[in-house]
Amino acid sequence: MSQQSVSEGDLRNTGMALKHDREWDYELERIVNAVEERNASTVGLQFPEGLKRRGPNVVDDLRANLPDGVQVLLSGQPCYGACDLDTYLMRRTDVFVHFGHSPMKESEKIIYVPLFSNVDVEPIMADSLAELADPTEDPDVGLVTTAQHMNKFEEMRGWLEDRDFSVHTRRGDDRLTHEGQVLGCNYASADIDAEQVLYVGGGKFHPLGLAMEHPEKRVVIADPVNNAVSVADTEKFLKQRYGAVHRAMDADSWGVIFCTKIGQGRWDQAEKIIEANENAYLITMDEVTPDRLTNFGMDAFVNTGCPRITTDDGPRFKKPMLTPGEYEIAVGNESLENLEFDTFHGTW
Amino acid sequence: MSQQSVSEGDLRNTGMALKHDREWDYELERIVNAVEERNASTVGLQFPEGLKRRGPNVVDDLRANLPDGVQVLLSGQPCYGACDLDTYLMRRTDVFVHFGHSPMKESEKIIYVPLFSNVDVEPIMADSLAELADPTEDPDVGLVTTAQHMNKFEEMRGWLEDRDFSVHTRRGDDRLTHEGQVLGCNYASADIDAEQVLYVGGGKFHPLGLAMEHPEKRVVIADPVNNAVSVADTEKFLKQRYGAVHRAMDADSWGVIFCTKIGQGRWDQAEKIIEANENAYLITMDEVTPDRLTNFGMDAFVNTGCPRITTDDGPRFKKPMLTPGEYEIAVGNESLENLEFDTFHGTW
Repeated sequence: MSQQSVSEGDLRNTGMALKHDREWDYELERIVNAVEERNASTVGLQFPEGLKRRGPNVVDDLRANLPDGVQVLLSGQPCYGACDLDTYLMRRTDVFVHFGHSPMKESEKIIYVPLFSNVDVEPIMADSLAELADPTEDPDVGLVTTAQHMNKFEEMRGWLEDRDFSVHTRRGDDRLTHEGQVLGCNYASADIDAEQVLYVGGGKFHPLGLAMEHPEKRVVIADPVNNAVSVADTEKFLKQRYGAVHRAMDADSWGVIFCTKIGQGRWDQAEKIIEANENAYLITMDEVTPDRLTNFGMDAFVNTGCPRITTDDGPRFKKPMLTPGEYEIAVGNESLENLEFDTFHGTW
Repeated sequence: MSQQSVSEGDLRNTGMALKHDREWDYELERIVNAVEERNASTVGLQFPEGLKRRGPNVVDDLRANLPDGVQVLLSGQPCYGACDLDTYLMRRTDVFVHFGHSPMKESEKIIYVPLFSNVDVEPIMADSLAELADPTEDPDVGLVTTAQHMNKFEEMRGWLEDRDFSVHTRRGDDRLTHEGQVLGCNYASADIDAEQVLYVGGGKFHPLGLAMEHPEKRVVIADPVNNAVSVADTEKFLKQRYGAVHRAMDADSWGVIFCTKIGQGRWDQAEKIIEANENAYLITMDEVTPDRLTNFGMDAFVNTGCPRITTDDGPRFKKPMLTPGEYEIAVGNESLENLEFDTFHGTW
């Protein structure tokens, strides 16, 4: 395959609100090789929401490099993580490529193509020193990032060590691919022996979950995408959760959601709730949206699927939506002070 | 099973905007018998959107009559027809019940429970005489209705015959279960030798499609649910379609949607478009919504799935969305006067 025929795959002119230039490597050669090896006639491509716009260009590049007659299909299903594979497309294509997330579970059927940011992390790390303890007083710092910045993880570590920090990292559990990686639903990589954790990565979504899951730690955010340093503040998040639990306490009927996405199913939790509450009803669905739930006319919902739908999208739902732990508080089985962040472990 | 323990299942106090009282028979005994015969441990229930609110009550009734330990699951997926089975739930439950639609294809795996309206049709049929030709001048009239009113079909026919009409009916093709039945996507039952067709049923969704598919016929609507008689007028509908086709004529990139719902797949049509247009990209999805398509940044879309999403929801999409026939006009393969209503034939 000639590299000449492959577009650069940069995101600079796509209209996305990017603060920094980025370039992506779609690993087209790996895909073309897989098609040739398997003598494939169909290729399925799945992109996360923010990268779907790049899909048609990747199809163009593949068409130029694949044998005639190989059909390339784009998944139009929403996708927010490696928990969220388009299993329909996966089962019906000879080669299936999932872009932008690190593997939750390896499979011969799936080619995972990570998409790494090339944003420079050192300037924002320098800024973050103002929020970290002086290493002469407390050198211990945890270090975490997301799949997108994993390519710079050793650089981050070295940078901190050069400044006399003692850097604590961990791989977490089997839902996580990399040392130091966090997911929106899993912060096992921050179970380290340090009172402060430095999160280097875009946005507040991940560090907010991290601070909720590890309330005893100070979480410093060095965001190289938005060029901002801050300390994770869970107060608003917690208030919303207490509010939702409180509003659900009067519920007479409960919808218990079992999510059918491959990496979001927690059947045991759903079944346990149903067995103990005759006013609870099991509802199965893939996308958990306000519209879909409204039709059931329930007083409240418990979501055993993605915890971040529950907490971050919660205010969009017309009725209170709780995590399984919050449900136990709302029905009086646990006390309010036991409110914890809901995390997701294991694969599928 | 004691009928005493079964709630009446009427819709009168559910908050639904019903103009007439209705009662439904959920055929609980048939479901309970199937569970016993198959020694089932799981039962999946799927309701159309307008009846999902009744789901929890049906679960209550089933729980009271099923052996202990049988788990009843409600499908939370959107459902708009028998084309739209929740195959995930169907494959994972021992007994799967689909309510409110007549079978598109019989299967041992599926119990179809039709839900019939008990609304009286004769008063509105009497009103509709004002819009029908005098039978002494033109006695020929086609008669069609929806699955919901199928239980009164012979009564409708008899009522017309008593008034000296010659009633023409047809079963249509294999997508339709009953003589005289129409679907939103299939009007083969109106391929009859009469210049006027009487549609007896709720709403304008079906008769509008019928009038689009059979523009040479006068379609009289006798709506016993909203107590209104009218004649189907396709002008606004047609204008919207011409507008969408016109706006799509400048499109440089096309998203071609292949719908993954069991009864909405038209692979040959999708593939044909892709093969002939290098600026067309195949996108697979189940629910076809504006949000899902926006992310791809295409100039226009062709939907090979449900034609009514294309036509009736069309104005909600940010970019023009066409039927396969309309696409051929937009790209210049057919002339504008060949614009036809898109219908769906066969099962799966």
